[in-house]
Amino acid sequence: MLYFQQMLGTAVFAITGVLAIQKAGVDVFGAVVLGIITAIGGGTVRDLILDQPIFWIADFNYIWVGLIAATLAFFLTKKFQQRYRLLLYLDGFAAALFGLVATEKVLGLHLAAPFAVMMGVLTSIGGGIVRDVLASRTSLLMSREIYATPILLGCIVYVLLRDVFPTIQVAGWIALLFTSGLRFLAIYKDLQMPTILSTRQG
Amino acid sequence: MLYFQQMLGTAVFAITGVLAIQKAGVDVFGAVVLGIITAIGGGTVRDLILDQPIFWIADFNYIWVGLIAATLAFFLTKKFQQRYRLLLYLDGFAAALFGLVATEKVLGLHLAAPFAVMMGVLTSIGGGIVRDVLASRTSLLMSREIYATPILLGCIVYVLLRDVFPTIQVAGWIALLFTSGLRFLAIYKDLQMPTILSTRQG
Amino acid sequence: MLYFQQMLGTAVFAITGVLAIQKAGVDVFGAVVLGIITAIGGGTVRDLILDQPIFWIADFNYIWVGLIAATLAFFLTKKFQQRYRLLLYLDGFAAALFGLVATEKVLGLHLAAPFAVMMGVLTSIGGGIVRDVLASRTSLLMSREIYATPILLGCIVYVLLRDVFPTIQVAGWIALLFTSGLRFLAIYKDLQMPTILSTRQG
Repeated sequence: MLYFQQMLGTAVFAITGVLAIQKAGVDVFGAVVLGIITAIGGGTVRDLILDQPIFWIADFNYIWVGLIAATLAFFLTKKFQQRYRLLLYLDGFAAALFGLVATEKVLGLHLAAPFAVMMGVLTSIGGGIVRDVLASRTSLLMSREIYATPILLGCIVYVLLRDVFPTIQVAGWIALLFTSGLRFLAIYKDLQMPTILSTRQG
Repeated sequence: MLYFQQMLGTAVFAITGVLAIQKAGVDVFGAVVLGIITAIGGGTVRDLILDQPIFWIADFNYIWVGLIAATLAFFLTKKFQQRYRLLLYLDGFAAALFGLVATEKVLGLHLAAPFAVMMGVLTSIGGGIVRDVLASRTSLLMSREIYATPILLGCIVYVLLRDVFPTIQVAGWIALLFTSGLRFLAIYKDLQMPTILSTRQG
Repeated sequence: MLYFQQMLGTAVFAITGVLAIQKAGVDVFGAVVLGIITAIGGGTVRDLILDQPIFWIADFNYIWVGLIAATLAFFLTKKFQQRYRLLLYLDGFAAALFGLVATEKVLGLHLAAPFAVMMGVLTSIGGGIVRDVLASRTSLLMSREIYATPILLGCIVYVLLRDVFPTIQVAGWIALLFTSGLRFLAIYKDLQMPTILSTRQG
């Protein structure tokens, strides 16, 4: 069940990755590479830092799903753009899922909770940041979009709930609802970081 | 023999790396660092992902060859630019060689063929991409230049031929001719990706 | 003692990291992430290449110090800017210290001196370069600022002195004075790389 959702998340990240760069001139090779990087980049950097086997070497389905999704997104860009709003919500859900799964993975290695939260956020936003760097785009680190903050709060909530609830499943579902709920609210209301928490005024 | 060719390839990559950035303002330190990164960056990222010892720690000659070649390219830029066409062909040959050697390296670790192809392409184009990111240049992922596609096709051809031919030497030579031949054709005819395979029309 | 100085260096790097990007629009999350990356990025890449445990996983205080310093720098930007000159000198001292400590770390692993020098420079300037890439800024590799050269020379001097002096402490102090002295001179006199060592004339 979780496996299916992670593959769906991989596909969604690959698609939104291609849509993000399609306005710039890019050929099918570059688009597919950047789509796959969006999907797997965060987890790759996480596994390098943890000195764990890279997750997609153990299970190459992540690459195939990313490859197919990115190729479809390249050739059917307009179809996907008509569903952009839906994709944005799916992307928010996938980002929350990736962050929480990574947090649990690090806690399972008996590493400290603050480090687990850090790796959760990295897994979630790392791929998009690497894509933006490679595509010469302004990354979300330099924007006031509320994307990373819900994941940061959600991973902290998960770590706290995990000690309270008897099963990690319950803690996981609550944290997932909380994290994606925050992000959905930011999308729905078109929220931005308050100017007091941002250096560019106005 | 292969060792000599790889050192030649390292030198060529370092030289074309410096020539690529010399129009921007850069001092000798930056130029040499970026030249060396062009030469060894792709293989470095490959070894990090494979969790293998970085190839140039085991054999520091890669660094010395890159250092000397990049320094020469910095001080003798005009000389090298007069031979730019030749350098472009040598660069195409080196890229093909690096890609195929890396593919064989990964297959030798008994890892799957699609992964070997992926690492072959990464080894070949990774260094140039890291250089472009560090130098704030548009990377080849965002261009319609036919650079990565021949290597991708060539690595696939190599994997297929390797099962057919009795020795990997024969398969290797045919794949090398095929890969560099495709790239030479792209240079000679100044080919670009067809617009149907690119998002920027016209 | 050295531990305290390294924590001070981490704080200074995090603060100068935030000040470097604060003109661009960035929210508190992005600023803190980029500040921490400035402080720990170089050492992280070094440990990945060395295949050593990442230093801040073993001692998470580096993250906490970076986090607190970057947060203070975000909210008290003006206070810190009034002390910018002092910060610049402290940054030069921290860069020298990080480079020399890393050189010693690599020599302690019984690896070759040229490689140790290379890792020393990488540790020192790597974090700032990663920050600049993530923040779409021109990195110091593409500038004529005299920042990396003193560290390169200082790490070489350290390797040479280490064989001459009976204790590494004495060699370390002399190299630290030499390295930070060179950088202080470049700050004080506002020195740039001579045009003969740079591609952009004038």
